[in-house]
Amino acid sequence: MPTNHQGAQSLRFKGPITITETAAIAGPKEGQGPLKSDFDRIHDDILAGADSWEKAESEYLKEAIGLVLTKTKKQADEIDFIFAGDLLNQCTGSSYGAISFNRPFFGIFGACSTFGEGLGLGSALIDGGFATSVIAAASSHFCSAEKQFRFPLELGTQRPPTASWTVTGCGAALLSEGGNGPYVTGMTVGKMVDLGIKDAGNMGAAMAPSAADSLMNHFNDFGRAPEYYDLIITGDLGFVGMSLLKDLLKREGVTLGNNYNDCGAMIFSPKTQDTHAGGSGCGCSAITFSGHIMKRLRAGEIKKVLLCPTGALFSPTSSQQGQSIPGICHCVAVETEREGN
Amino acid sequence: MPTNHQGAQSLRFKGPITITETAAIAGPKEGQGPLKSDFDRIHDDILAGADSWEKAESEYLKEAIGLVLTKTKKQADEIDFIFAGDLLNQCTGSSYGAISFNRPFFGIFGACSTFGEGLGLGSALIDGGFATSVIAAASSHFCSAEKQFRFPLELGTQRPPTASWTVTGCGAALLSEGGNGPYVTGMTVGKMVDLGIKDAGNMGAAMAPSAADSLMNHFNDFGRAPEYYDLIITGDLGFVGMSLLKDLLKREGVTLGNNYNDCGAMIFSPKTQDTHAGGSGCGCSAITFSGHIMKRLRAGEIKKVLLCPTGALFSPTSSQQGQSIPGICHCVAVETEREGN
Repeated sequence: MPTNHQGAQSLRFKGPITITETAAIAGPKEGQGPLKSDFDRIHDDILAGADSWEKAESEYLKEAIGLVLTKTKKQADEIDFIFAGDLLNQCTGSSYGAISFNRPFFGIFGACSTFGEGLGLGSALIDGGFATSVIAAASSHFCSAEKQFRFPLELGTQRPPTASWTVTGCGAALLSEGGNGPYVTGMTVGKMVDLGIKDAGNMGAAMAPSAADSLMNHFNDFGRAPEYYDLIITGDLGFVGMSLLKDLLKREGVTLGNNYNDCGAMIFSPKTQDTHAGGSGCGCSAITFSGHIMKRLRAGEIKKVLLCPTGALFSPTSSQQGQSIPGICHCVAVETEREGN
Repeated sequence: MPTNHQGAQSLRFKGPITITETAAIAGPKEGQGPLKSDFDRIHDDILAGADSWEKAESEYLKEAIGLVLTKTKKQADEIDFIFAGDLLNQCTGSSYGAISFNRPFFGIFGACSTFGEGLGLGSALIDGGFATSVIAAASSHFCSAEKQFRFPLELGTQRPPTASWTVTGCGAALLSEGGNGPYVTGMTVGKMVDLGIKDAGNMGAAMAPSAADSLMNHFNDFGRAPEYYDLIITGDLGFVGMSLLKDLLKREGVTLGNNYNDCGAMIFSPKTQDTHAGGSGCGCSAITFSGHIMKRLRAGEIKKVLLCPTGALFSPTSSQQGQSIPGICHCVAVETEREGN
């Protein structure tokens, strides 16, 4: 086996690969939620000054990458590569958002797992000696997503209790060779899992099986138990998917305890912001990680995090044609200390 | 600078990374064109037995990956990772096409540059010691693309002379650590370039500036002139874009000679198959490379190829909202001998 391939489907980064800085740009509703004090910027205007929801999403992405550069006092041309993706058709949130930085660009699509895919591939390029500085970013926008995946917003269609609320926001992270952490130490690359869910109003159920699969593989590949981590956090399973994930893992003899949470369950308040099953979208795990989790890692409150963004790889067309919804989940290990150091 | 970062925006693979095998699955029109004898399988039925164009596209992808496995006598679980992408909304051609192989999956989106992105990222994972076997695949389908990007096929809308014809087909390549070549030796990662073209019926003009940018950077990064290669082949600029690319490079003092061609210009016969500007789509460079070019490399007719798939990172929505069309081009060097060996 090659040196840095770990177990069945994981990458081990010899590193050190540091998450030097992150930026979390949030929309108005996210900015009234429980994590509001952790975001770098909160837009009162969901359009962020743009004249369409799609252009607004690009604006959020542009701001997030721009803020990472500002915080690190870097010029764009010091960044070797940008990885970015989103939910819009042909990933235009990312292309129009990132073009002004004029950097070599890898477009990625993992639906709401995109931020994990970008962190992992970016880390692999650095670890392989191909880059010193890589930015990974992912965005989503409630209005552009609802319009595209479900119903015209103007209809005011009632949402089922299993539905989640697409997060408006963008998270971006600068990955660097060397540095003092937090470090990206490994990634378990997800397989697509499809247990036959066809309800586009129940993403949690569609994605939970892939999260269970990736987590089991992660624990096996690295010889770890859930207790290894201070926090295991899925992307956007929401309350419905979280409960299903726990059940699925229990059948495999693995119990997720109090160190388990979900970005979709954390980002909105079930009491004061009724979003039904919770938050979702590429931006959900991206801003929860880039804002909230990075702050806790930096403060030393938590030291070992397994970030597991989850995605549903379907489209409105595939749903209309009767196809079920495959899920995917990439697990990215972020730790303030490196094993053996 | 890190070891394997070459020049401004390129990856150098110490390798050896071999393209062990490829498969090219073509649609009916492609199967009547000049490259017909180079494809592994030609479908008489553009639906490939499926009941929708989108499902047919997934079927082409499934067949291409399956055939690579059959040819190499490999089981799916011997493949470490699959990289795949396509033009469909949310890249469903790839997800539904690749799911049955049950492998760790990276979804990528580079529009028609996707095959180059997959070859490059797959090679980087192998070169970084993260994998021994990676499959890269990209597909497109004339009917699913026309329906999504332009007009309902049933309308029989007249196409402008600058329009290209989306290729129906899928190409897949198995990249392996070691082996006897042809080798992937380097990649120049493209930047997005947008010179203001807004006409979705003129992709060649939208993408030519990015091809010029990536080629100039490739020559600079590796210290090579166009003559270094036996064949420099862009993805799907077509006749309009080829001519623009030559002009743009001439302004920089670089002349592309008889060793330059374009997959979109080669795949259909201008005399007997009027496709106006030529072929396009992710499948265009994917099946031209996986079928035609690999055969010529294997036969020793050509030894050094620079494959430069080109993509237009727009969507129907971005066009409707008045945005211009950014292009991107990734250059992948494939050589039967490795420098210094």
